[in-house]
Amino acid sequence: MKKIAVLAVLLGSVASTEQPAPDPGLKTITQVAIVCRDIDATSRHWAAVLGVDPPQIRTTRPGGEVKMLYRGKPSNGQAKLAFLKAGQVTVELIQPVGGPSSWKEFLDANGEGVQHVAFQVENPDRTLAYFAGIHAPVLHQGRYDSDNGSYFYVDSKGPLGVTVELLHSDARKR
Amino acid sequence: MKKIAVLAVLLGSVASTEQPAPDPGLKTITQVAIVCRDIDATSRHWAAVLGVDPPQIRTTRPGGEVKMLYRGKPSNGQAKLAFLKAGQVTVELIQPVGGPSSWKEFLDANGEGVQHVAFQVENPDRTLAYFAGIHAPVLHQGRYDSDNGSYFYVDSKGPLGVTVELLHSDARKR
Repeated sequence: MKKIAVLAVLLGSVASTEQPAPDPGLKTITQVAIVCRDIDATSRHWAAVLGVDPPQIRTTRPGGEVKMLYRGKPSNGQAKLAFLKAGQVTVELIQPVGGPSSWKEFLDANGEGVQHVAFQVENPDRTLAYFAGIHAPVLHQGRYDSDNGSYFYVDSKGPLGVTVELLHSDARKR
Repeated sequence: MKKIAVLAVLLGSVASTEQPAPDPGLKTITQVAIVCRDIDATSRHWAAVLGVDPPQIRTTRPGGEVKMLYRGKPSNGQAKLAFLKAGQVTVELIQPVGGPSSWKEFLDANGEGVQHVAFQVENPDRTLAYFAGIHAPVLHQGRYDSDNGSYFYVDSKGPLGVTVELLHSDARKR
């Protein structure tokens, strides 16, 4: 009986290493986010290109009010934001203002460009655990008002070639 | 009669300057394209993140065979490509190989990252005329086999913050 038990444990161990990695829960890209220097001009150009009215531009609350952490430290970074629908995907325009943020870091290092792609996730803890396992830690996080939500930027440029944002709405239980 | 004709021409000219700009025909983002150094590794990571099988990787034909022009000159640039669905949007992974291309230029200047977003267009001449009017000329163009199609990269980083690719399929008349 003891040998059988040992064999069962060994087989279980082999089986578990052969199981697929847990599904990190990313399915659909919902936003493509472009960091820019002049959101008034860039949003007017995007509106004209998409044949829509220029979008509203709003400024995020100071980082301290939305529990913003950037590289693990509280930051008062802010951004001006505008959103335009381009099919299922929303183009998010971001002009960094104020203190340090992943937005400002990207603009300083790269100039204008796509800073991240965003996914809605059901279980951010599970997704973040997956990314931690591939050495992609959280870079920047905070809360957003429009949907009573949390956002997490994952430093996934190494494995994926781009920073990924995870969006999780407390209000939108599906 | 002559005065009336002159007046009509003047009125026509005023009316035309007041007309809205022609709709450039961009509606839906269909691809988000990431330039990377090692498409085998990056595509494996993307497949794991999306919970799908690793995609096929194929190499484009040499630029000379697909009428490739880069900054107005024929180029033999090529790329290894892989495609993964993430909802309505396809993640396109591009590893440049061979001669000059917008893909290689991006990688040399910026490292890995989102090089362009792509739109299907009905009438590329009309869309390209619109972009020419906002000082965004064609940067790189060619043919692709899978859909008997043409692609055009527009140097739209100034107005839009990102390079836009226009895809037009001769086979897919809608």
